[in-house]
Amino acid sequence: MVQKIKNRVDKILNGVSTADVPARIFQVFIITLIFLNVFAVILETVEGLLSRYAGAFKVFDAFSVLVFTVEYLLRLWTCTTDKRFRGSLKGRFRFAATPLALVDLMAILPFYLPVFLPLDLRMIRSLRLFRLLRILKMGRYSESLRMLGNVLREEKEALLVTVFGVSILLVVASSLMYFIENTSQPKAFSSIPAALWWGVATVTTVGYGDMYPITPLGRFLGAIIAILGIGAIAIPAGIVTTGFTKEIQKRHGKKSVCPHCGKDINESPEESSIAHKNP
Amino acid sequence: MVQKIKNRVDKILNGVSTADVPARIFQVFIITLIFLNVFAVILETVEGLLSRYAGAFKVFDAFSVLVFTVEYLLRLWTCTTDKRFRGSLKGRFRFAATPLALVDLMAILPFYLPVFLPLDLRMIRSLRLFRLLRILKMGRYSESLRMLGNVLREEKEALLVTVFGVSILLVVASSLMYFIENTSQPKAFSSIPAALWWGVATVTTVGYGDMYPITPLGRFLGAIIAILGIGAIAIPAGIVTTGFTKEIQKRHGKKSVCPHCGKDINESPEESSIAHKNP
Amino acid sequence: MVQKIKNRVDKILNGVSTADVPARIFQVFIITLIFLNVFAVILETVEGLLSRYAGAFKVFDAFSVLVFTVEYLLRLWTCTTDKRFRGSLKGRFRFAATPLALVDLMAILPFYLPVFLPLDLRMIRSLRLFRLLRILKMGRYSESLRMLGNVLREEKEALLVTVFGVSILLVVASSLMYFIENTSQPKAFSSIPAALWWGVATVTTVGYGDMYPITPLGRFLGAIIAILGIGAIAIPAGIVTTGFTKEIQKRHGKKSVCPHCGKDINESPEESSIAHKNP
Amino acid sequence: MVQKIKNRVDKILNGVSTADVPARIFQVFIITLIFLNVFAVILETVEGLLSRYAGAFKVFDAFSVLVFTVEYLLRLWTCTTDKRFRGSLKGRFRFAATPLALVDLMAILPFYLPVFLPLDLRMIRSLRLFRLLRILKMGRYSESLRMLGNVLREEKEALLVTVFGVSILLVVASSLMYFIENTSQPKAFSSIPAALWWGVATVTTVGYGDMYPITPLGRFLGAIIAILGIGAIAIPAGIVTTGFTKEIQKRHGKKSVCPHCGKDINESPEESSIAHKNP
Repeated sequence: MVQKIKNRVDKILNGVSTADVPARIFQVFIITLIFLNVFAVILETVEGLLSRYAGAFKVFDAFSVLVFTVEYLLRLWTCTTDKRFRGSLKGRFRFAATPLALVDLMAILPFYLPVFLPLDLRMIRSLRLFRLLRILKMGRYSESLRMLGNVLREEKEALLVTVFGVSILLVVASSLMYFIENTSQPKAFSSIPAALWWGVATVTTVGYGDMYPITPLGRFLGAIIAILGIGAIAIPAGIVTTGFTKEIQKRHGKKSVCPHCGKDINESPEESSIAHKNP
Repeated sequence: MVQKIKNRVDKILNGVSTADVPARIFQVFIITLIFLNVFAVILETVEGLLSRYAGAFKVFDAFSVLVFTVEYLLRLWTCTTDKRFRGSLKGRFRFAATPLALVDLMAILPFYLPVFLPLDLRMIRSLRLFRLLRILKMGRYSESLRMLGNVLREEKEALLVTVFGVSILLVVASSLMYFIENTSQPKAFSSIPAALWWGVATVTTVGYGDMYPITPLGRFLGAIIAILGIGAIAIPAGIVTTGFTKEIQKRHGKKSVCPHCGKDINESPEESSIAHKNP
Repeated sequence: MVQKIKNRVDKILNGVSTADVPARIFQVFIITLIFLNVFAVILETVEGLLSRYAGAFKVFDAFSVLVFTVEYLLRLWTCTTDKRFRGSLKGRFRFAATPLALVDLMAILPFYLPVFLPLDLRMIRSLRLFRLLRILKMGRYSESLRMLGNVLREEKEALLVTVFGVSILLVVASSLMYFIENTSQPKAFSSIPAALWWGVATVTTVGYGDMYPITPLGRFLGAIIAILGIGAIAIPAGIVTTGFTKEIQKRHGKKSVCPHCGKDINESPEESSIAHKNP
Repeated sequence: MVQKIKNRVDKILNGVSTADVPARIFQVFIITLIFLNVFAVILETVEGLLSRYAGAFKVFDAFSVLVFTVEYLLRLWTCTTDKRFRGSLKGRFRFAATPLALVDLMAILPFYLPVFLPLDLRMIRSLRLFRLLRILKMGRYSESLRMLGNVLREEKEALLVTVFGVSILLVVASSLMYFIENTSQPKAFSSIPAALWWGVATVTTVGYGDMYPITPLGRFLGAIIAILGIGAIAIPAGIVTTGFTKEIQKRHGKKSVCPHCGKDINESPEESSIAHKNP
């Protein structure tokens, strides 16, 4: 009987079939609650709003933590239905150590921490922001975010090269600019780290306008860096494009196959050609 | 006889064949009128222009509304020639509820509204801007805009993932930046919503320069966000590129087919390979 | 004899084979002269430089015009060797009306104009800038620029759709922003045309920072426009990417052909499949 | 015996196999030292840091130069094991003239130069920055940077066209803008070179906001340039995308080959089709 309830609760918590109405309702409810939580954290920082609606914010936070705590405990209880987490104690510990379970724990911990530990006001204020981590709970529900993660993981090497190349460009450009502009703008270009702030703003084409070269030589170098910065956008754009296209094709189960023999058209033809030539 | 005129008017209104000269003239006339209307609304807001040429603007607006009203009424009259809108009353109501017909109605309603409803000056001024909606009438004439719509619809899922990912990046980055910069710039980074304005300007690489971090830690975080913001451009660029290429190929009727059997080279080869192997 | 010289001069002027040394020298000389001319026009505007080196600038300009005039006259003389411009008068008029010949004429006309027409100082100053048009003479020598032109011409339709879509986005966004921000920033957002300046700076992600929304609603709309502006970069990037790839493939003579029958793999297979099936 | 040690040292210095633990340790050590050197040069420019930790910076620099000098001398000693640099003197000179060896020399020269040459303080300060060149030593260890170099080399022609096209756009746009804005902003748009600074900031979409048109005509031209500037990002993005995809495919040994005969599907089919047709 208890086992039956446990199985049912587990299906509602981890439901994937859209036919299961309670699981569907639970999912929508949790996702909505996560979004409202993020919204609440954002609004709390607006002057006047927190002091005026302090009570409402407190009640909503307590309610959210209650729901998330119950969810976390239910997950801890039902996780043993999964083969990977068999064993009433050992399995549960192994489940609690999974990234998604840790995220669930982090979503409720900031609420309980001040109860156990003596914290000053500033630390409590910092803890408030930690509630934003609840947004990471979305990871459990969004298949799309996982897909984005796959692309970034697959193209990791190429992206690292780009980041490395851009870093070298940044360091060299900013050092030169520091050397050129330091005498005419000693305050703005006071050091290479300060010049790096200009470099990032220029290479990413953000261009806040708080720092910019004013000497002819500095402007000439700045123009070259700005033009090279286009590459800093163009190259990762190309890499991600290729990766995304591959990932979408993979998900749709499409491969460039030969309509005759069904082999991948991009694979090495050695074996198949032998098979064709020796009938 | 009336039926014959009705058919002719319908052909002129919805003419697609370029050989039909009156239909072609009517199309060019309406498109020109729409552009002139948008131009007039824009110019009216320039100080001095409205007061000096108030009469001309009024006459032109009245003339435009007259044309658009006649066009709308003619469309209502002739719509019954289309199979979908048969039935002199029921069919016409169904036609009036289509998006394109609603856009046509919205293009003329702001002119007639003050006649029927008592409106104060500010509301009438707002209504003037509603005339800009006449630009939506272009949707009826531009095949290209529909193509763009197709691409966005097909790649909807992938684009939503990006928007979702960028939103999470924005919220997390802006909250952190608020926490870091709030003490040294209490006015600029007064709340997370205020910091979000900085976040959007940075991630989209617009960089107005009205807000930017000044503390070393804030600049370090800002630099990372700016570099990550490149992905916010690179990823949708990749998605739209793929989608546009597919859409153009589709319109030109080009598919990657095998020259031997004519099957799509990207499709599953199971059936075709059987057909080849069992002759 | 004259005919022989004419042919030789024509080959030097329009030489394509790199083995013809005089033609090669002539090309490098003219291209260098064009670059130096552009450089001179740019430097002349720098305060102090013109007054100090007035003589040098004048001599260089006179020398350049002399060379370009001789080049133009020689081209006029030898053009009849080309089949398209046969006929000593009619052919030469037809040649003089070609875009490249007109560009050659425009490169020298600003020098001779003040001789024939009475011009005030301001107009003469404007004419100086017209010398920049000499840069267009490069079009004759740069095969690469023609390739870029081909891509833009082939993808014309798709690019027009984008420009049209961006224009509508710009007009709608700027009108809304004018309506929202006008009361709180009556000077900056004084009219829709003024708001359009903000719109362009935002959609293209330039973001000068001379205009930006300050009201919460204006910032909310501004954030949406900035994010949509990414599409204004992503969509043409995709179109040009596709076009460029196609153009490069075309120039290298590469086609996706089947190694068996040599047919284009992207073409309709109807005929070839018949040929295969009925041996 | 000496020959044996020489071979061992050479393997450690140029080790590629990851199984050779000493070579691996040496590589990680040198790369870390390079990064720390770059970091030190950057930190030295921060006011206060240099004066407070002058001793530590000096010791670290001396230690780095010692290591790099020993590395350079060892390389000079062992280079003769390579077939290309046979000959105890001639081979070593040929080795010393390779780009990588020159970079190694430049990394240590700034330290020894003041010993041999009488330099004033400002020149010594400039020499400090030259230590940043040590970052180029990374080139020896990073395969990825070479890959990026390959892409840029292969797409050189297409990228040059773009740079050339953007340059022409910049010169024409800036000259026009100078002509339009000079009278109303004589200080900002004082000359074409000054206007070019605005042009670069606009075309690359950096948009510092230190210069922008204020006249209606100037803003109209500025808007067009900003929109054309999108192409300056879109076109290289497309080129690099294509190049990167090709390079990655090449490295993974993937080609579009026919599974039947193993020929490249993009190659001319003449010979293979003959082979197929005449069995």
